[in-house]
Amino acid sequence: ELLYDVARHFTAKVMEGQHVLVSAGPTFEAIDPVRGLTNLSSGKMGFAIARAAHEAGARVTLVAGPVGLPTPRGVARIDVRSALEMKAALEAQAPTASVFVSAAAVADWRPATSQQEKIKKDGTGQVPTLSFVENPDILAGIAASPRARRRELFCVGFAAESHDLQTHAQAKRARKGVPLLVGNIGPETFGKDDNALLLVDEQGVQELPRAGKLPLARQLVAEISRRLPVVVAA
Amino acid sequence: ELLYDVARHFTAKVMEGQHVLVSAGPTFEAIDPVRGLTNLSSGKMGFAIARAAHEAGARVTLVAGPVGLPTPRGVARIDVRSALEMKAALEAQAPTASVFVSAAAVADWRPATSQQEKIKKDGTGQVPTLSFVENPDILAGIAASPRARRRELFCVGFAAESHDLQTHAQAKRARKGVPLLVGNIGPETFGKDDNALLLVDEQGVQELPRAGKLPLARQLVAEISRRLPVVVAA
Repeated sequence: ELLYDVARHFTAKVMEGQHVLVSAGPTFEAIDPVRGLTNLSSGKMGFAIARAAHEAGARVTLVAGPVGLPTPRGVARIDVRSALEMKAALEAQAPTASVFVSAAAVADWRPATSQQEKIKKDGTGQVPTLSFVENPDILAGIAASPRARRRELFCVGFAAESHDLQTHAQAKRARKGVPLLVGNIGPETFGKDDNALLLVDEQGVQELPRAGKLPLARQLVAEISRRLPVVVAA
Repeated sequence: ELLYDVARHFTAKVMEGQHVLVSAGPTFEAIDPVRGLTNLSSGKMGFAIARAAHEAGARVTLVAGPVGLPTPRGVARIDVRSALEMKAALEAQAPTASVFVSAAAVADWRPATSQQEKIKKDGTGQVPTLSFVENPDILAGIAASPRARRRELFCVGFAAESHDLQTHAQAKRARKGVPLLVGNIGPETFGKDDNALLLVDEQGVQELPRAGKLPLARQLVAEISRRLPVVVAA
Protein backbone atom coordinates (compact mmCIF):
# COMPACT_ATOMS: atom_id res chain seq x y z
CA GLU A 1 0.00 0.00 0.00
CA LEU A 2 2.87 2.36 0.82
CA LEU A 3 4.47 1.51 -2.52
CA TYR A 4 1.18 2.25 -4.23
CA ASP A 5 0.93 5.64 -2.53
CA VAL A 6 4.50 6.44 -3.61
CA ALA A 7 3.77 5.34 -7.17
CA ARG A 8 0.62 7.43 -7.26
CA HIS A 9 2.50 10.42 -5.87
CA PHE A 10 4.96 10.34 -8.76
CA THR A 11 2.39 9.69 -11.48
CA ALA A 12 1.45 12.69 -13.61
CA LYS A 13 -2.11 13.67 -12.65
CA VAL A 14 -3.37 13.75 -16.23
CA MET A 15 -6.80 12.57 -15.08
CA GLU A 16 -7.23 15.06 -12.24
CA GLY A 17 -10.85 16.20 -12.00
CA GLN A 18 -12.16 13.38 -14.21
CA HIS A 19 -14.69 10.74 -13.18
CA VAL A 20 -13.64 7.61 -15.04
CA LEU A 21 -16.20 4.82 -15.35
CA VAL A 22 -14.76 1.42 -16.26
CA SER A 23 -16.56 -1.84 -16.98
CA ALA A 24 -14.62 -5.08 -16.62
CA GLY A 25 -14.89 -8.85 -16.73
CA PRO A 26 -17.39 -11.17 -18.38
CA THR A 27 -21.11 -11.28 -17.80
CA PHE A 28 -22.92 -14.45 -16.75
CA GLU A 29 -26.25 -15.10 -18.48
CA ALA A 30 -28.31 -17.54 -16.43
CA ILE A 31 -29.84 -20.62 -18.05
CA ASP A 32 -31.17 -21.96 -14.73
CA PRO A 33 -30.26 -21.37 -11.06
CA VAL A 34 -26.76 -22.80 -11.50
CA ARG A 35 -25.87 -22.84 -15.19
CA GLY A 36 -25.12 -20.03 -17.54
CA LEU A 37 -23.33 -18.69 -20.55
CA THR A 38 -20.13 -16.75 -20.01
CA ASN A 39 -16.76 -16.06 -21.59
CA LEU A 40 -13.10 -16.30 -20.72
CA SER A 41 -12.56 -12.62 -19.88
CA SER A 42 -10.57 -12.44 -16.65
CA GLY A 43 -11.28 -8.76 -15.97
CA LYS A 44 -7.55 -8.07 -15.59
CA MET A 45 -7.35 -5.41 -18.31
CA GLY A 46 -10.34 -3.45 -16.98
CA PHE A 47 -9.08 -3.65 -13.41
CA ALA A 48 -5.64 -2.43 -14.58
CA ILE A 49 -7.29 0.51 -16.37
CA ALA A 50 -9.27 1.39 -13.23
CA ARG A 51 -6.07 1.33 -11.21
CA ALA A 52 -4.11 3.37 -13.78
CA ALA A 53 -6.88 6.00 -13.97
CA HIS A 54 -6.89 6.32 -10.19
CA GLU A 55 -3.08 6.65 -10.14
CA ALA A 56 -3.50 9.46 -12.68
CA GLY A 57 -5.74 11.39 -10.30
CA ALA A 58 -9.24 10.42 -11.44
CA ARG A 59 -12.22 9.43 -9.37
CA VAL A 60 -12.88 5.90 -10.61
CA THR A 61 -16.00 3.72 -10.60
CA LEU A 62 -15.51 0.11 -11.67
CA VAL A 63 -18.51 -1.99 -12.70
CA ALA A 64 -17.34 -5.61 -12.60
CA GLY A 65 -18.84 -8.87 -13.81
CA PRO A 66 -18.20 -12.07 -11.83
CA VAL A 67 -14.42 -12.19 -11.32
CA GLY A 68 -12.39 -12.92 -8.21
CA LEU A 69 -9.95 -10.01 -8.57
CA PRO A 70 -9.20 -7.65 -5.67
CA THR A 71 -10.56 -4.11 -5.99
CA PRO A 72 -7.84 -1.60 -6.91
CA ARG A 73 -7.09 0.78 -4.06
CA GLY A 74 -9.23 3.91 -4.00
CA VAL A 75 -11.61 2.60 -6.67
CA ALA A 76 -15.39 2.34 -6.08
CA ARG A 77 -16.55 -1.09 -7.25
CA ILE A 78 -20.04 -2.27 -8.21
CA ASP A 79 -20.43 -6.02 -8.76
CA VAL A 80 -22.95 -7.28 -11.31
CA ARG A 81 -23.68 -10.61 -12.95
CA SER A 82 -25.72 -10.30 -16.16
CA ALA A 83 -25.52 -7.89 -19.10
CA LEU A 84 -28.82 -6.29 -18.04
CA GLU A 85 -27.48 -5.71 -14.52
CA MET A 86 -24.30 -4.26 -15.97
CA LYS A 87 -26.30 -1.94 -18.22
CA ALA A 88 -28.34 -0.63 -15.28
CA ALA A 89 -25.23 -0.02 -13.15
CA LEU A 90 -23.36 1.76 -15.95
CA GLU A 91 -26.32 3.92 -16.95
CA ALA A 92 -26.73 4.99 -13.33
CA GLN A 93 -23.09 6.18 -13.26
CA ALA A 94 -22.75 7.60 -16.79
CA PRO A 95 -24.50 10.95 -16.12
CA THR A 96 -21.71 11.97 -13.69
CA ALA A 97 -18.80 10.40 -15.59
CA SER A 98 -16.46 12.24 -17.98
CA VAL A 99 -14.76 9.13 -19.39
CA PHE A 100 -16.27 5.67 -19.96
CA VAL A 101 -13.96 2.77 -20.78
CA SER A 102 -16.00 -0.24 -21.79
CA ALA A 103 -13.54 -3.06 -21.14
CA ALA A 104 -16.10 -5.68 -20.10
CA ALA A 105 -16.76 -8.63 -22.37
CA VAL A 106 -20.53 -8.31 -22.26
CA ALA A 107 -22.39 -11.33 -23.59
CA ASP A 108 -23.94 -10.55 -26.98
CA TRP A 109 -26.82 -12.92 -26.26
CA ARG A 110 -28.68 -14.29 -23.30
CA PRO A 111 -30.92 -17.38 -23.12
CA ALA A 112 -34.44 -16.54 -24.26
CA THR A 113 -35.81 -18.12 -21.10
CA SER A 114 -34.20 -18.80 -17.74
CA GLN A 115 -35.52 -21.79 -15.80
CA GLN A 116 -36.42 -21.32 -12.14
CA GLU A 117 -35.38 -24.85 -11.28
CA LYS A 118 -32.20 -26.63 -12.28
CA ILE A 119 -32.67 -28.45 -15.60
CA LYS A 120 -32.30 -32.14 -14.84
CA LYS A 121 -30.57 -34.75 -16.91
CA ASP A 122 -33.34 -37.33 -16.93
CA GLY A 123 -31.35 -40.27 -18.22
CA THR A 124 -33.27 -40.47 -21.50
CA GLY A 125 -30.32 -39.00 -23.36
CA GLN A 126 -32.50 -36.06 -24.36
CA VAL A 127 -30.59 -32.81 -24.54
CA PRO A 128 -31.94 -29.29 -24.22
CA THR A 129 -31.89 -26.79 -27.06
CA LEU A 130 -31.20 -23.23 -26.18
CA SER A 131 -32.40 -20.20 -28.03
CA PHE A 132 -31.14 -16.73 -27.41
CA VAL A 133 -32.17 -13.11 -27.50
CA GLU A 134 -29.75 -10.33 -28.23
CA ASN A 135 -28.52 -8.27 -25.29
CA PRO A 136 -28.71 -4.48 -25.62
CA ASP A 137 -25.51 -2.81 -26.84
CA ILE A 138 -24.53 -0.99 -23.64
CA LEU A 139 -21.64 0.98 -25.12
CA ALA A 140 -23.53 2.12 -28.23
CA GLY A 141 -26.41 3.24 -26.04
CA ILE A 142 -24.22 5.32 -23.74
CA ALA A 143 -22.18 6.66 -26.70
CA ALA A 144 -25.43 7.90 -28.29
CA SER A 145 -26.37 9.97 -25.24
CA PRO A 146 -26.32 13.79 -25.62
CA ARG A 147 -23.41 14.15 -23.16
CA ALA A 148 -21.32 11.65 -25.11
CA ARG A 149 -22.17 13.35 -28.42
CA ARG A 150 -20.97 16.66 -26.94
CA ARG A 151 -17.77 14.86 -25.73
CA GLU A 152 -18.63 15.66 -22.11
CA LEU A 153 -18.46 11.90 -21.75
CA PHE A 154 -15.54 10.44 -23.72
CA CYS A 155 -16.33 6.82 -24.63
CA VAL A 156 -13.74 4.13 -25.29
CA GLY A 157 -14.65 0.70 -26.63
CA PHE A 158 -12.77 -2.58 -26.77
CA ALA A 159 -12.73 -5.23 -29.46
CA ALA A 160 -11.53 -8.79 -28.96
CA GLU A 161 -11.36 -10.59 -32.27
CA SER A 162 -9.89 -13.91 -33.22
CA HIS A 163 -9.05 -12.69 -36.76
CA ASP A 164 -8.80 -9.53 -38.92
CA LEU A 165 -8.48 -7.34 -35.85
CA GLN A 166 -7.86 -4.04 -37.62
CA THR A 167 -10.79 -4.33 -40.01
CA HIS A 168 -13.15 -5.41 -37.26
CA ALA A 169 -11.90 -2.72 -34.88
CA GLN A 170 -12.50 0.04 -37.46
CA ALA A 171 -15.97 -1.30 -38.22
CA LYS A 172 -16.76 -1.60 -34.54
CA ARG A 173 -15.67 1.97 -33.85
CA ALA A 174 -18.08 3.23 -36.48
CA ARG A 175 -20.90 0.95 -35.31
CA LYS A 176 -20.52 1.90 -31.65
CA GLY A 177 -20.10 5.57 -32.45
CA VAL A 178 -17.11 6.05 -30.14
CA PRO A 179 -14.08 8.33 -30.66
CA LEU A 180 -11.59 5.63 -29.57
CA LEU A 181 -11.68 1.89 -30.03
CA VAL A 182 -9.04 -0.37 -28.52
CA GLY A 183 -8.40 -3.72 -30.16
CA ASN A 184 -6.81 -6.70 -28.50
CA ILE A 185 -6.18 -10.17 -29.80
CA GLY A 186 -9.08 -11.76 -27.90
CA PRO A 187 -8.53 -15.45 -27.32
CA GLU A 188 -4.81 -14.93 -26.87
CA THR A 189 -5.18 -12.19 -24.28
CA PHE A 190 -8.06 -13.51 -22.13
CA GLY A 191 -6.73 -14.47 -18.71
CA LYS A 192 -3.17 -13.56 -19.59
CA ASP A 193 -1.08 -11.03 -17.67
CA ASP A 194 0.14 -9.25 -20.76
CA ASN A 195 -1.44 -7.96 -23.89
CA ALA A 196 -0.91 -5.88 -27.03
CA LEU A 197 -3.27 -3.10 -28.02
CA LEU A 198 -4.30 -1.42 -31.23
CA LEU A 199 -5.72 2.09 -30.82
CA VAL A 200 -8.14 3.07 -33.56
CA ASP A 201 -9.46 6.61 -33.80
CA GLU A 202 -10.36 9.06 -36.56
CA GLN A 203 -6.63 9.82 -37.05
CA GLY A 204 -5.87 6.21 -37.83
CA VAL A 205 -4.20 3.31 -36.08
CA GLN A 206 -1.55 3.23 -33.35
CA GLU A 207 -0.01 0.16 -31.75
CA LEU A 208 0.92 -0.31 -28.11
CA PRO A 209 3.30 -3.26 -28.25
CA ARG A 210 3.02 -6.29 -25.99
CA ALA A 211 3.58 -5.48 -22.33
CA GLY A 212 2.09 -6.18 -18.92
CA LYS A 213 -1.55 -5.15 -18.59
CA LEU A 214 -0.78 -2.47 -15.98
CA PRO A 215 1.92 -0.68 -18.04
CA LEU A 216 -0.40 -0.92 -21.06
CA ALA A 217 -3.28 0.46 -19.00
CA ARG A 218 -1.13 3.42 -17.95
CA GLN A 219 -0.24 4.13 -21.60
CA LEU A 220 -3.88 3.84 -22.56
CA VAL A 221 -4.95 6.25 -19.81
CA ALA A 222 -2.33 8.73 -21.04
CA GLU A 223 -3.61 8.31 -24.62
CA ILE A 224 -7.19 8.91 -23.46
CA SER A 225 -6.18 12.04 -21.51
CA ARG A 226 -4.50 13.47 -24.65
CA ARG A 227 -7.81 13.13 -26.46
CA LEU A 228 -10.04 14.74 -23.84
CA PRO A 229 -11.49 18.14 -24.66
CA VAL A 230 -9.55 21.03 -23.11
CA VAL A 231 -11.74 22.71 -20.53
CA VAL A 232 -11.39 26.48 -20.75
CA ALA A 233 -11.90 28.13 -17.39
CA ALA A 234 -14.69 30.68 -17.43
CA GLU B 1 2.19 -21.84 6.74
CA LEU B 2 3.54 -22.45 10.23
CA LEU B 3 -0.01 -22.43 11.55
CA TYR B 4 -0.97 -24.92 8.89
CA ASP B 5 1.87 -27.25 9.86
CA VAL B 6 0.83 -27.01 13.51
CA ALA B 7 -2.79 -27.74 12.60
CA ARG B 8 -1.75 -30.71 10.49
CA HIS B 9 0.46 -31.99 13.31
CA PHE B 10 -2.49 -32.14 15.69
CA THR B 11 -4.97 -33.60 13.20
CA ALA B 12 -5.70 -37.31 13.59
CA LYS B 13 -4.08 -39.06 10.64
CA VAL B 14 -7.20 -40.98 9.68
CA MET B 15 -6.22 -40.81 6.00
CA GLU B 16 -2.62 -41.96 6.44
CA GLY B 17 -1.58 -44.17 3.54
CA GLN B 18 -4.54 -43.14 1.35
CA HIS B 19 -4.32 -41.45 -2.05
CA VAL B 20 -7.32 -39.14 -2.19
CA LEU B 21 -8.39 -37.86 -5.61
CA VAL B 22 -10.66 -34.80 -5.54
CA SER B 23 -12.37 -32.99 -8.41
CA ALA B 24 -13.46 -29.39 -7.87
CA GLY B 25 -14.95 -26.36 -9.55
CA PRO B 26 -17.09 -25.96 -12.67
CA THR B 27 -16.20 -27.03 -16.18
CA PHE B 28 -16.21 -24.62 -19.12
CA GLU B 29 -17.69 -25.99 -22.35
CA ALA B 30 -16.49 -23.91 -25.28
CA ILE B 31 -18.98 -22.51 -27.80
CA ASP B 32 -16.29 -20.60 -29.70
CA PRO B 33 -12.77 -19.36 -28.82
CA VAL B 34 -14.09 -16.99 -26.14
CA ARG B 35 -17.60 -18.07 -25.14
CA GLY B 36 -18.79 -21.05 -23.24
CA LEU B 37 -21.26 -22.67 -20.93
CA THR B 38 -20.39 -22.91 -17.26
CA ASN B 39 -21.95 -22.86 -13.80
CA LEU B 40 -21.63 -20.96 -10.56
CA SER B 41 -19.52 -23.53 -8.70
CA SER B 42 -16.68 -21.69 -6.94
CA GLY B 43 -14.61 -24.81 -6.23
CA LYS B 44 -14.40 -23.87 -2.54
CA MET B 45 -15.94 -27.10 -1.20
CA GLY B 46 -13.64 -29.33 -3.28
CA PHE B 47 -10.57 -27.30 -2.37
CA ALA B 48 -11.55 -27.53 1.33
CA ILE B 49 -11.91 -31.32 1.03
CA ALA B 50 -8.48 -31.57 -0.62
CA ARG B 51 -7.00 -29.55 2.22
CA ALA B 52 -8.79 -31.55 4.93
CA ALA B 53 -7.69 -34.85 3.38
CA HIS B 54 -4.09 -33.65 3.32
CA GLU B 55 -4.33 -32.51 6.95
CA ALA B 56 -5.56 -36.01 7.75
CA GLY B 57 -2.39 -37.54 6.31
CA ALA B 58 -3.43 -38.49 2.78
CA ARG B 59 -1.57 -37.94 -0.45
CA VAL B 60 -3.97 -35.69 -2.36
CA THR B 61 -4.45 -35.00 -6.07
CA LEU B 62 -6.85 -32.20 -6.95
CA VAL B 63 -8.26 -31.92 -10.48
CA ALA B 64 -9.67 -28.41 -10.79
CA GLY B 65 -11.85 -26.68 -13.35
CA PRO B 66 -11.30 -22.96 -14.07
CA VAL B 67 -11.28 -21.26 -10.66
CA GLY B 68 -8.89 -18.69 -9.22
CA LEU B 69 -8.40 -20.39 -5.84
CA PRO B 70 -4.93 -20.96 -4.38
CA THR B 71 -3.74 -24.58 -4.26
CA PRO B 72 -3.93 -26.05 -0.74
CA ARG B 73 -0.49 -26.69 0.71
CA GLY B 74 0.96 -30.09 -0.05
CA VAL B 75 -1.73 -30.91 -2.63
CA ALA B 76 -0.87 -31.86 -6.24
CA ARG B 77 -3.12 -29.86 -8.57
CA ILE B 78 -4.06 -30.53 -12.20
CA ASP B 79 -5.95 -27.71 -13.96
CA VAL B 80 -8.50 -28.56 -16.65
CA ARG B 81 -11.19 -26.66 -18.52
CA SER B 82 -13.82 -28.93 -20.12
CA ALA B 83 -15.63 -32.03 -18.87
CA LEU B 84 -13.70 -34.18 -21.36
CA GLU B 85 -10.39 -32.82 -20.08
CA MET B 86 -11.51 -33.43 -16.51
CA LYS B 87 -12.49 -37.00 -17.37
CA ALA B 88 -9.08 -37.70 -18.89
CA ALA B 89 -7.21 -36.25 -15.90
CA LEU B 90 -9.32 -38.15 -13.35
CA GLU B 91 -9.11 -41.45 -15.21
CA ALA B 92 -5.34 -41.11 -15.35
CA GLN B 93 -5.21 -40.74 -11.54
CA ALA B 94 -7.96 -43.17 -10.52
CA PRO B 95 -5.89 -46.38 -10.88
CA THR B 96 -3.56 -45.28 -8.04
CA ALA B 97 -6.21 -43.61 -5.84
CA SER B 98 -7.97 -45.22 -2.86
CA VAL B 99 -10.63 -42.51 -2.44
CA PHE B 100 -12.30 -40.38 -5.13
CA VAL B 101 -14.39 -37.40 -4.05
CA SER B 102 -16.25 -36.00 -7.05
CA ALA B 103 -16.98 -32.45 -5.88
CA ALA B 104 -16.73 -30.79 -9.29
CA ALA B 105 -19.87 -29.42 -10.92
CA VAL B 106 -19.23 -31.04 -14.28
CA ALA B 107 -21.39 -29.69 -17.09
CA ASP B 108 -24.07 -32.23 -18.06
CA TRP B 109 -23.98 -31.02 -21.65
CA ARG B 110 -21.55 -29.43 -24.06
CA PRO B 111 -22.31 -27.59 -27.30
CA ALA B 112 -22.66 -30.05 -30.17
CA THR B 113 -20.18 -28.01 -32.21
CA SER B 114 -17.52 -25.55 -31.14
CA GLN B 115 -16.71 -22.76 -33.61
CA GLN B 116 -13.06 -22.10 -34.46
CA GLU B 117 -13.71 -18.39 -34.90
CA LYS B 118 -15.63 -16.10 -32.60
CA ILE B 119 -19.32 -16.01 -33.56
CA LYS B 120 -20.02 -12.47 -34.69
CA LYS B 121 -23.09 -10.41 -33.99
CA ASP B 122 -23.77 -9.28 -37.53
CA GLY B 123 -26.29 -6.54 -36.79
CA THR B 124 -29.17 -8.36 -38.46
CA GLY B 125 -30.64 -9.22 -35.07
CA GLN B 126 -30.26 -12.91 -35.92
CA VAL B 127 -29.41 -15.00 -32.91
CA PRO B 128 -27.65 -18.35 -32.80
CA THR B 129 -29.34 -21.54 -31.66
CA LEU B 130 -27.27 -23.94 -29.68
CA SER B 131 -27.71 -27.66 -29.54
CA PHE B 132 -25.98 -29.88 -27.05
CA VAL B 133 -24.61 -33.34 -26.61
CA GLU B 134 -24.49 -35.09 -23.27
CA ASN B 135 -21.15 -35.23 -21.49
CA PRO B 136 -20.00 -38.60 -20.19
CA ASP B 137 -20.84 -39.31 -16.54
CA ILE B 138 -17.31 -39.24 -15.10
CA LEU B 139 -18.24 -40.43 -11.61
CA ALA B 140 -20.48 -43.26 -12.77
CA GLY B 141 -17.73 -44.43 -15.12
CA ILE B 142 -15.07 -44.49 -12.41
CA ALA B 143 -17.50 -46.01 -9.87
CA ALA B 144 -18.14 -48.88 -12.31
CA SER B 145 -14.46 -49.80 -12.55
CA PRO B 146 -13.36 -53.15 -11.03
CA ARG B 147 -11.28 -51.41 -8.32
CA ALA B 148 -14.25 -49.29 -7.25
CA ARG B 149 -16.55 -52.32 -7.22
CA ARG B 150 -14.06 -54.11 -4.96
CA ARG B 151 -13.98 -50.96 -2.72
CA GLU B 152 -10.24 -50.53 -3.37
CA LEU B 153 -11.36 -47.14 -4.67
CA PHE B 154 -14.05 -45.59 -2.45
CA CYS B 155 -16.17 -43.18 -4.51
CA VAL B 156 -18.05 -40.21 -3.12
CA GLY B 157 -20.49 -38.16 -5.20
CA PHE B 158 -22.06 -34.74 -4.72
CA ALA B 159 -25.53 -33.55 -5.57
CA ALA B 160 -26.52 -29.90 -5.85
CA GLU B 161 -30.26 -29.59 -6.23
CA SER B 162 -32.57 -26.62 -6.11
CA HIS B 163 -35.46 -28.71 -4.66
CA ASP B 164 -36.27 -32.11 -3.15
CA LEU B 165 -32.66 -32.64 -2.13
CA GLN B 166 -33.10 -35.89 -0.22
CA THR B 167 -35.11 -37.66 -2.91
CA HIS B 168 -32.72 -36.55 -5.65
CA ALA B 169 -29.65 -37.46 -3.59
CA GLN B 170 -30.92 -41.00 -2.94
CA ALA B 171 -31.75 -41.45 -6.62
CA LYS B 172 -28.38 -40.07 -7.65
CA ARG B 173 -26.52 -42.41 -5.29
CA ALA B 174 -28.22 -45.38 -6.93
CA ARG B 175 -27.70 -44.05 -10.45
CA LYS B 176 -24.02 -43.29 -9.92
CA GLY B 177 -23.43 -46.55 -8.08
CA VAL B 178 -21.43 -44.95 -5.25
CA PRO B 179 -21.38 -45.95 -1.56
CA LEU B 180 -21.67 -42.33 -0.36
CA LEU B 181 -23.50 -39.38 -1.85
CA VAL B 182 -23.23 -35.90 -0.35
CA GLY B 183 -26.07 -33.48 -0.95
CA ASN B 184 -25.80 -29.72 -0.69
CA ILE B 185 -28.37 -27.05 -1.35
CA GLY B 186 -26.94 -26.11 -4.74
CA PRO B 187 -27.85 -22.54 -5.72
CA GLU B 188 -27.63 -21.42 -2.10
CA THR B 189 -24.17 -22.85 -1.53
CA PHE B 190 -22.39 -21.96 -4.78
CA GLY B 191 -19.73 -19.35 -4.10
CA LYS B 192 -20.57 -19.15 -0.41
CA ASP B 193 -18.11 -19.79 2.37
CA ASP B 194 -20.41 -22.02 4.35
CA ASN B 195 -22.66 -24.90 3.53
CA ALA B 196 -24.81 -27.67 4.99
CA LEU B 197 -24.43 -31.29 3.91
CA LEU B 198 -26.63 -34.32 3.76
CA LEU B 199 -24.78 -37.66 3.77
CA VAL B 200 -26.67 -40.44 2.05
CA ASP B 201 -25.41 -44.02 2.18
CA GLU B 202 -26.95 -47.49 2.43
CA GLN B 203 -27.51 -46.94 6.19
CA GLY B 204 -29.67 -43.89 5.56
CA VAL B 205 -29.33 -40.17 5.89
CA GLN B 206 -27.13 -38.06 8.18
CA GLU B 207 -26.98 -34.28 8.33
CA LEU B 208 -23.91 -32.14 8.86
CA PRO B 209 -25.40 -28.80 9.92
CA ARG B 210 -24.44 -25.48 8.38
CA ALA B 211 -20.81 -24.54 9.03
CA GLY B 212 -17.78 -23.16 7.23
CA LYS B 213 -16.71 -25.26 4.24
CA LEU B 214 -13.37 -26.22 5.85
CA PRO B 215 -14.89 -27.54 9.14
CA LEU B 216 -17.50 -29.37 7.05
CA ALA B 217 -14.78 -30.81 4.82
CA ARG B 218 -12.93 -32.09 7.90
CA GLN B 219 -16.12 -33.78 9.17
CA LEU B 220 -16.72 -35.27 5.73
CA VAL B 221 -13.16 -36.62 5.54
CA ALA B 222 -13.64 -38.23 8.98
CA GLU B 223 -16.95 -39.74 7.79
CA ILE B 224 -15.27 -41.12 4.68
CA SER B 225 -12.42 -42.62 6.70
CA ARG B 226 -14.93 -44.43 8.95
CA ARG B 227 -16.38 -46.06 5.85
CA LEU B 228 -13.10 -47.24 4.30
CA PRO B 229 -12.42 -50.97 4.29
CA VAL B 230 -10.10 -52.06 7.08
CA VAL B 231 -6.89 -53.28 5.55
CA VAL B 232 -5.71 -56.44 7.25
CA ALA B 233 -1.92 -56.70 7.20
CA ALA B 234 -0.69 -59.89 5.52
